[in-house]
Amino acid sequence: MADYNAQPLERLIANFQKLSGVGRKGATRMAYQILGMDKAEAEEFGNAILAVHNQIHRCPVCQSFTEREICKICESPARDKSVICIVESPRDITTFEKTREYKGTYHVLHGLISPLDGIGVDQLTVKELLVRLNEDDVKEVIMATNPTVEGEATAMYLSRLIKPLGIKVTRLAYGLPVGSSLEFADEVTLFRALKGRTEI
Amino acid sequence: MADYNAQPLERLIANFQKLSGVGRKGATRMAYQILGMDKAEAEEFGNAILAVHNQIHRCPVCQSFTEREICKICESPARDKSVICIVESPRDITTFEKTREYKGTYHVLHGLISPLDGIGVDQLTVKELLVRLNEDDVKEVIMATNPTVEGEATAMYLSRLIKPLGIKVTRLAYGLPVGSSLEFADEVTLFRALKGRTEI
Repeated sequence: MADYNAQPLERLIANFQKLSGVGRKGATRMAYQILGMDKAEAEEFGNAILAVHNQIHRCPVCQSFTEREICKICESPARDKSVICIVESPRDITTFEKTREYKGTYHVLHGLISPLDGIGVDQLTVKELLVRLNEDDVKEVIMATNPTVEGEATAMYLSRLIKPLGIKVTRLAYGLPVGSSLEFADEVTLFRALKGRTEI
Repeated sequence: MADYNAQPLERLIANFQKLSGVGRKGATRMAYQILGMDKAEAEEFGNAILAVHNQIHRCPVCQSFTEREICKICESPARDKSVICIVESPRDITTFEKTREYKGTYHVLHGLISPLDGIGVDQLTVKELLVRLNEDDVKEVIMATNPTVEGEATAMYLSRLIKPLGIKVTRLAYGLPVGSSLEFADEVTLFRALKGRTEI
């Protein structure tokens, strides 16, 4: 019976359930684990959640999350300001940084155009992107939105907006994932891999 | 790169990783979700974690968690105080209450005897159990620890302790899980099901 649990525990379970991928059972397990921690540890956890909203805000340039005035990447003189890689969320930046190959800057859209979910251009950070394109000497914009319907549509929309400004717009290559097998490739991916084949 | 994330975000990720079954990826996803919540929602979450330790304590009778002076079950005049069901953790009580069949009380051990993990009788709430057995008019103690090595050993130890007091000690029945198939039953379970067969 849900109403057996103590009320503060039910409250915590309800909060854990708000996280996507966490159901009633998982949330209950997590809440009991918090209860099983010593008090200092649980306080650290609770305060970490409170701190994240108090200390982190969007970087005024790239719109990623940062606790500084301007984020590390935008601030760094080592990064090439003439190339902007457009991503959906701040997490994508971490993925790119792991490759240690990209030396340009980023721009976080904080979403994708999705009429079905009622998300239009106004909810994204397109206005801030246009300011950057006008102010900085940008030579290339790389579309790095996910290869989904919404990702494609957003990339298309933005490229039509940016190209007239005389800026080169590129898209990440489609193809077979490294280490995968032809056997498991879907037709569309294979078609794109064939179309984008390069000379050895 | 782990060090790309803003420091308060890394702190929150580290806290989520403390939960068992949550790895680096899951913790990162959760932390970003917290960041994506509006501030009031995140504050509610953080405060819920803080509240759980401040407001919940062990029931002085059954040792389960409660925000009241004495827990609902121990306080209820409808519950039969002469029967005590011994469980490993407070979560087990919820499982029992779901059956809506059991009308006795509970006693939470908060662990099982496990010499390999350095958990002896002193770390469990055996002392508190003995106080109850001496003070209340207890007629039956039901061992409901998990059917594992540690659960069995703990049940054995406690039954040897309680039987000399002239109290009936019982154990949950072993057998085939309802809805399962003979095909999937292991030998030990089948042996116990055979041994515990009842007349139709």
